[in-house]
Amino acid sequence: MSVIPDRLPSLDRAAAERAARRLDNLTKPPGSLGRLERLAIDLAAIQGEALPRVTPPKILVFAADHGVAVEGVSAFPQSVTAQMVANFVTGGAAVNVFARQHGAGLEVIDVGVATPLSPELIGHPQLVDDKVRPGTANMVKTDAMSPEETEQAIGVGFRAAEQAVASGYRSLIVGEMGIANTTASSALLAVLHDVSLESVVGIGTGIDDTCLAHKRSVIRRAIDARCVDSSDPLGALVALGGLEIAAMVGAFLGGAAHRLPLLVDGFIATVAALVACRLCPSLRDYLIFGHHSSEPGHGAALAALNAHPLLDLEMRLGEGSGAALAFPLLDSACRMLSEMATFSDAGIDGAVTS
Amino acid sequence: MSVIPDRLPSLDRAAAERAARRLDNLTKPPGSLGRLERLAIDLAAIQGEALPRVTPPKILVFAADHGVAVEGVSAFPQSVTAQMVANFVTGGAAVNVFARQHGAGLEVIDVGVATPLSPELIGHPQLVDDKVRPGTANMVKTDAMSPEETEQAIGVGFRAAEQAVASGYRSLIVGEMGIANTTASSALLAVLHDVSLESVVGIGTGIDDTCLAHKRSVIRRAIDARCVDSSDPLGALVALGGLEIAAMVGAFLGGAAHRLPLLVDGFIATVAALVACRLCPSLRDYLIFGHHSSEPGHGAALAALNAHPLLDLEMRLGEGSGAALAFPLLDSACRMLSEMATFSDAGIDGAVTS
Repeated sequence: MSVIPDRLPSLDRAAAERAARRLDNLTKPPGSLGRLERLAIDLAAIQGEALPRVTPPKILVFAADHGVAVEGVSAFPQSVTAQMVANFVTGGAAVNVFARQHGAGLEVIDVGVATPLSPELIGHPQLVDDKVRPGTANMVKTDAMSPEETEQAIGVGFRAAEQAVASGYRSLIVGEMGIANTTASSALLAVLHDVSLESVVGIGTGIDDTCLAHKRSVIRRAIDARCVDSSDPLGALVALGGLEIAAMVGAFLGGAAHRLPLLVDGFIATVAALVACRLCPSLRDYLIFGHHSSEPGHGAALAALNAHPLLDLEMRLGEGSGAALAFPLLDSACRMLSEMATFSDAGIDGAVTS
Repeated sequence: MSVIPDRLPSLDRAAAERAARRLDNLTKPPGSLGRLERLAIDLAAIQGEALPRVTPPKILVFAADHGVAVEGVSAFPQSVTAQMVANFVTGGAAVNVFARQHGAGLEVIDVGVATPLSPELIGHPQLVDDKVRPGTANMVKTDAMSPEETEQAIGVGFRAAEQAVASGYRSLIVGEMGIANTTASSALLAVLHDVSLESVVGIGTGIDDTCLAHKRSVIRRAIDARCVDSSDPLGALVALGGLEIAAMVGAFLGGAAHRLPLLVDGFIATVAALVACRLCPSLRDYLIFGHHSSEPGHGAALAALNAHPLLDLEMRLGEGSGAALAFPLLDSACRMLSEMATFSDAGIDGAVTS
């Protein structure tokens, strides 16, 4: 597929080494800032700069609908996807609040919302109309989308990330909105990673036990009907969707192609990252995991990527909200490296050597 | 002791209830922001406002020396306490970097630094000279300080917190600097809480195994010689020190007396919080724990207070640095409550009811 890079830039080990040496000369006991120090080194390696900088960050929220919503797998009606797009554009959602707090740019990309958006939103500078199709097909009955549509959606994400780079953003948060997208994500995860369906299907926005059992059986039927296998990540995406997940795959790849640190959000974003890493394994080097969601499949998705998120606040909202909350830690890591005094700057005695 | 309040203001349950009701109307599945929602409710209860606000925050760094340093329990010489005070004042320490990032005011209070500070620091607006005595006495040989000095140091912290309130600060981070203060803190914790010395003594700024065994034996000798017991938190403070720990006790009590949310840092701050809670149990309601330190005693100190910190980044620096990193989460909780749209504001359909 033309939009998947053959390779990504390698990490810059020399920049990481320079950052590590500087860290050991800063006015603190060596290693005493723990994970923040390792984060600073990782950011140096990603950006290829001994003094990395992650501000300003860009948040891309990809929105799309899922045909499988007709099976009654979500607590909310499909209309909510379009309504939440309006909420993102007018600044009222959680991710907007955190974006303002942290000085992040935010863009909502309609890659496949089924319900027509209200006319007054058209042309809004924060809304991008890149609709590939109005929602996926119901994966229980047929493939969620065609290979061409899948490629097109990946391209939407790839170009959105490239646009963020061109606009001067220095890090990327990739979020999503799509009623029923935990259903598609659980299906993708069950196919791509060797875990039981029981362990990776959760309540999403909040369904009861009966509906949860129904959601599991819908996913089981879809997986059985679609005949997808773990060695074909792109085939799994075609069969199970969704459009916003494909766009997130593209955004991760597009960001990494330009050495952007990628701050991964919760369950759906991590499943998209998993698909992207199966397509292009060296993407893993560019991923920083923001938070551990309370959606049960997230643990398995994180394990598949050997990922240890920065935060664990029992959240399960999506939108990029968990990653946005973790962003200040990336900024702190960079500022620590560039702003702290060294022992010699500050005239501070070193450790007593015995 | 005159400076210990008989009681603190009660939490405002009505404000907490109003905050909780608003949370359930915001454009997100109920409860989906997890601990951030509980944090918002706690802040409403503490401040007595349905829409709490924690900005601007004030960071108070209390600095003092410990006579026990002569026993060779630290990786760094005692001179480093005064040198780090200079580093705080000139803005080069980790906590300064995070304070600037988060718009926090920062003040360094010399409550007992042993080494004379360099003359050019005198009169600096961020340095407060409230020295009670130049370092504690060696707790192995005699009480670390007198009851009067202990009371005086608590008063220094209490007044520093009151001054922060008077200056318009809306939350408080209490940090410390003092070579050998993990030694005093481990001793206090072992006395006040029923845990083995082995489990609560760690490497501090970074000592080797031989020095760690020596540090344990020094603490054991001090505890045996001082005859303090778990029912007398003030007696423990007198016997074991230190001046900055006493000042932190006072700052917590002074902040809570004026309904300031108190963001607790790592091991030493948590031990100070434990002492303060033993003196005035309702203080616990005002404490929010910023991070879980990798200093081994911190787990026991947190357990003694039934505390679950927001971050766990394997840090062990002190200064208030871990609490400062957690601060944006408190701000996010407040902003979520005040800035997010409600379902009716945004015209978003509610959950499907079956």
